[in-house]
Amino acid sequence: MAAARERVEARLLTAAETGHPAMTEMASHLMRAGGKRMRPLLTVAAAATADGEAPAPGSGDDVTGGVAVELVHLGSLYHDDVIDEASTRRAVESVNARWGNLRAILAGDFLLARASELAASLGNEVAALLAATIGRLCEGEVRELERVYQVDRSEADYLAAIEGKTASLFATACRIGGIVADRPRPQIEALTEFGRLYGMAFQVVDDVLDVVATDEELGKPAGHDMAEGVYNLPVLRSLAGPGGDELRGLLGGPLTADAQARALAIVRDGQGPAAATAAAGGYVASAAEALAPIPPSPATEALAGAAEHLLAGVADRV
Amino acid sequence: MAAARERVEARLLTAAETGHPAMTEMASHLMRAGGKRMRPLLTVAAAATADGEAPAPGSGDDVTGGVAVELVHLGSLYHDDVIDEASTRRAVESVNARWGNLRAILAGDFLLARASELAASLGNEVAALLAATIGRLCEGEVRELERVYQVDRSEADYLAAIEGKTASLFATACRIGGIVADRPRPQIEALTEFGRLYGMAFQVVDDVLDVVATDEELGKPAGHDMAEGVYNLPVLRSLAGPGGDELRGLLGGPLTADAQARALAIVRDGQGPAAATAAAGGYVASAAEALAPIPPSPATEALAGAAEHLLAGVADRV
Repeated sequence: MAAARERVEARLLTAAETGHPAMTEMASHLMRAGGKRMRPLLTVAAAATADGEAPAPGSGDDVTGGVAVELVHLGSLYHDDVIDEASTRRAVESVNARWGNLRAILAGDFLLARASELAASLGNEVAALLAATIGRLCEGEVRELERVYQVDRSEADYLAAIEGKTASLFATACRIGGIVADRPRPQIEALTEFGRLYGMAFQVVDDVLDVVATDEELGKPAGHDMAEGVYNLPVLRSLAGPGGDELRGLLGGPLTADAQARALAIVRDGQGPAAATAAAGGYVASAAEALAPIPPSPATEALAGAAEHLLAGVADRV
Repeated sequence: MAAARERVEARLLTAAETGHPAMTEMASHLMRAGGKRMRPLLTVAAAATADGEAPAPGSGDDVTGGVAVELVHLGSLYHDDVIDEASTRRAVESVNARWGNLRAILAGDFLLARASELAASLGNEVAALLAATIGRLCEGEVRELERVYQVDRSEADYLAAIEGKTASLFATACRIGGIVADRPRPQIEALTEFGRLYGMAFQVVDDVLDVVATDEELGKPAGHDMAEGVYNLPVLRSLAGPGGDELRGLLGGPLTADAQARALAIVRDGQGPAAATAAAGGYVASAAEALAPIPPSPATEALAGAAEHLLAGVADRV
């Protein structure tokens, strides 16, 4: 995977290049700050489930497809940071903080357009898939906004929102891998379902970390989502458990610093983080099972291992 | 064209539909406020230059392609309005004013994604073309921003900016018409060049109107671009003519109300609007000439007539 990772990095930088130097600088700003590149590496691993007739991993269309997915992710982060008025991202100044909202919106649009261009180079199916996925990401974000500060938000609503805003792009990352490697349809469906479940686990773990990790680890105050009124799974489970009534009394609107500290303490001490982590574990197990239609290989092991690894950061904290 | 127009309207509304009612409402908000639909009607007219073997205008892929282009236009307006903090657009409340910046950015992204999805349904070439065009629109906007409040902005810089931010989408509108109607390559290139020149004329005329039209006609204060530091062709020509020195003394930064009124009077009384209108006339004439490789037909007449019509609004004002 190290070789694939290097190719992904190189192709990302190439994708940000344009005849306009200011745009190139803005478009490459966040990718130059590093990142785990989970999505493109999943694309490469998904493609590598192909048998010996397929090209070597990281050699061509798999990287192109993975980079397209990563560009969507990066472009949406540009827009998220404008929306959140975020000043930093990945320990560097955010694009909006450095160049203003206007340029950050345009640079985000540019990255999304470049993603679509790469997808088009892989054929209609990938182009249509990536475009539909961008639409789903937007819908998931809007769905989340609709429930802001609603303490009676249902778990089903939470799950639908994260499926749209997060899991759909992971599903597409894996699906593109299957498509470019010309896998049989049942295997492409299996890879897609793996990606979706991986994405669900990823977001639930991220939401658990938002309440159990330290401010330093997060690079932002713990409980940030809760303070913003986004009541995610650990919070919803805490609302339903012991201490839920007191928590319900605190939430439902913007929090004072004291109320924020108290609400965070209730969630941390309650059953929410453990229950949410167990749910994430369920998604990880289902993700591994989803790979059943695919002949076992180092690539399927890598995929299942990557899903299992999602739990490493939270398992010993809750 | 009336039938084609109805089909465009219907397909636009269909394109905004999604399982998420709030997103559908936001995505269809601006299209429901009406619009001239110049871009999709150019796509339909360009496709109609095909001989008798082609499908009837407005019957299929031409409308799909035109709608994709119009969705790009609409999506970019959503983002422009966030950027400009505009409160109205086409005499209705802007999306950002009604639903906030956050949702306006997401709804704009959604429209761009739907555009890419429609483009993908027309094949790789159209998908790649539309994606590349979105990138060019963003670059044109960034280029314009780089020259804000610069009184020594060159005409070449102005022309490069409007080619990117405006003409490239008109060129693509016409090119898609040629592609979906399966025209020979030289005719596709001719249609593309026609669209580019049409777009140049369109933007120059728009910029002339910005200074010569009344506040009421514009729905915003005349000289808005100048006040925002975007020195367009009539202003640049005025700077180079009689009264240019006084104008240069006023511009270069934000204007007081008095300075804005005086600067606008200088531009209106100077040679700028007439010189810019003459330039627009040159583009219109070149656009008609660009159609030379295409056998004359009612469709080529309609295209040339549409370009000529651009001048109708300004010819008697300067």
